[in-house]
Amino acid sequence: MSTIADVAARAGVSKATASRALSGRGYVSEDTRRKVADAAAELAYVAHSSAFSLATGRTHTVGVVMPSLERWFFAELLAGIQESLLEQGYDLTLYSLDAGANQRVRLFDGILPRKRFDGIIAAGIQPGPRELERMLRPDRPLVSVGPHAEGASSVSIDDFAAARIATEHLITLGHTRVAFVGTAADAAARSFVDGRRVEGYREAMASAGLGAGIRIVGAGSGGGTTPDGYAAAAELLGDRRARPTAIVGVCDEAAIGAIIASRRLGIAVPAELSVVGIDDHQHAEMFALTTIRQRPREQGAEAVRLLQRRIADADAPIEHVVAASALVVRNSTAPAR
Amino acid sequence: MSTIADVAARAGVSKATASRALSGRGYVSEDTRRKVADAAAELAYVAHSSAFSLATGRTHTVGVVMPSLERWFFAELLAGIQESLLEQGYDLTLYSLDAGANQRVRLFDGILPRKRFDGIIAAGIQPGPRELERMLRPDRPLVSVGPHAEGASSVSIDDFAAARIATEHLITLGHTRVAFVGTAADAAARSFVDGRRVEGYREAMASAGLGAGIRIVGAGSGGGTTPDGYAAAAELLGDRRARPTAIVGVCDEAAIGAIIASRRLGIAVPAELSVVGIDDHQHAEMFALTTIRQRPREQGAEAVRLLQRRIADADAPIEHVVAASALVVRNSTAPAR
Repeated sequence: MSTIADVAARAGVSKATASRALSGRGYVSEDTRRKVADAAAELAYVAHSSAFSLATGRTHTVGVVMPSLERWFFAELLAGIQESLLEQGYDLTLYSLDAGANQRVRLFDGILPRKRFDGIIAAGIQPGPRELERMLRPDRPLVSVGPHAEGASSVSIDDFAAARIATEHLITLGHTRVAFVGTAADAAARSFVDGRRVEGYREAMASAGLGAGIRIVGAGSGGGTTPDGYAAAAELLGDRRARPTAIVGVCDEAAIGAIIASRRLGIAVPAELSVVGIDDHQHAEMFALTTIRQRPREQGAEAVRLLQRRIADADAPIEHVVAASALVVRNSTAPAR
Repeated sequence: MSTIADVAARAGVSKATASRALSGRGYVSEDTRRKVADAAAELAYVAHSSAFSLATGRTHTVGVVMPSLERWFFAELLAGIQESLLEQGYDLTLYSLDAGANQRVRLFDGILPRKRFDGIIAAGIQPGPRELERMLRPDRPLVSVGPHAEGASSVSIDDFAAARIATEHLITLGHTRVAFVGTAADAAARSFVDGRRVEGYREAMASAGLGAGIRIVGAGSGGGTTPDGYAAAAELLGDRRARPTAIVGVCDEAAIGAIIASRRLGIAVPAELSVVGIDDHQHAEMFALTTIRQRPREQGAEAVRLLQRRIADADAPIEHVVAASALVVRNSTAPAR
């Protein structure tokens, strides 16, 4: 079995340089990296990451738990987490949770407790106390993206404020019949984030004296997709007399679904219907969608920073970062007629 | 430090049962799984996965390399791979490649060669000979999704045939001005899959004597997104005289972008413009999009099966699976006027 010394000798560099080149941690020129990689390949050198990890107790691997990757937010967030971890020389072990409750039990009870991750990032899931207990270990910090979790650092936008500001934007434009679309119809099935957004909408409506007009048209399953927004808007817009003049989507995907439905029904946006979303999805500009902007890639990078602080120092304080969000007014909202 | 025997004793089950419950491999009732997990948590039992892996040479981890997760195909494929690996008790270490060429060099030269994965699944990337050499090791089989790679099993649809059939569908409807949209403008920047689809379109046009009418309107970057299809269609449809009567999208996302652009320009689909895609994206039905259906989740599961066969038996033959695809006619295509 070749050693790092053999590789260094063959590549004509120091052991330290060879180690840096192979680990991906620390600076080394592309040229040197290539030379060392060639030497390692020729010698069939394999770093003993398992032996290394037994000796140091570190695996340089972070577990990431998130729901379905279908939603833009999670795909972007994952890209941000991935990029940051790779830069720092960490591997990312992914667990996505879209196959239902049974998989969730198995993950939390059977798999996560026995894994030797240096830390865990849990995104968009609201862990129960029992699940939290399974994830948290003294030597394994947790960062939550979206929901807060006891004992974990977190990064999120203020989802309550985001939905409140989106709704207030419509109310300021003179709209009184403002509906909220695209979250799960069953409140118990809503994610923590969606629930906060519903509350923000309710608060804005109630504060403006429009509490009696609160109307939430939900989706059959988890919600948050373009077809969910499409179906909800088609239902709302079908009945001419009860038709709202404005719609808040639980996210941009739902808002875009509402715009597509209204175009299909021949209802002009924004002349006859104003639509606002939350996200600033990559398609928002194409639909001229007014929205509350957030940057999931940056939230992913922030989650990695928060995690690393606690990996480096188990006594580092738990931190809660509220990421910036801002109203971006495009052409899907206009004064009520 | 607690042992598996301690956990089994506390849970009141055999060592074998405790091991099955904790490893997630083999059947055990939910109730027993919970009892064992509780016992393990109370005893702060941590399986020595590193020690285990030194002893057996197996890490029960599979590396997955894929480009951007923004495209529906890759998000779905990843979900399929993830679900199958989890069922089999394997972890998934993810490397996504959307941060550019420098990251790619580092991944192939610095990171992959030294990782102790049981196997690798590479999706949507066309590895060069040097990259292939870095990924392949006698003890580490490779499965490629999309492009074929020397020495690797593969799963893909017949992308050439898919685009040919999509184009022929339009030609059969009497269309002669048929454009292809949404792939990278620069042929060298096209993915292997996109390149095959362009060839399939060319072949169908040439065979029908329409070779002179071949028209490919590409995107600035990698292509394949809804905004790419939107921009290409807006360009094509802007000039009334040179306007095509039919469009083939390199994928459904590009085709949907073309439909959105035509609606914005007041061009009726399918009366004035027929549009066909490839994928059967989750939004295809909402846009009544005619398309070539493929099932990336099933391709992900198939990739895991191919990989496991070669993990279990290093001498197992290399296999190439061509997944089924079929024309699904909806309401975005109609006879030429």
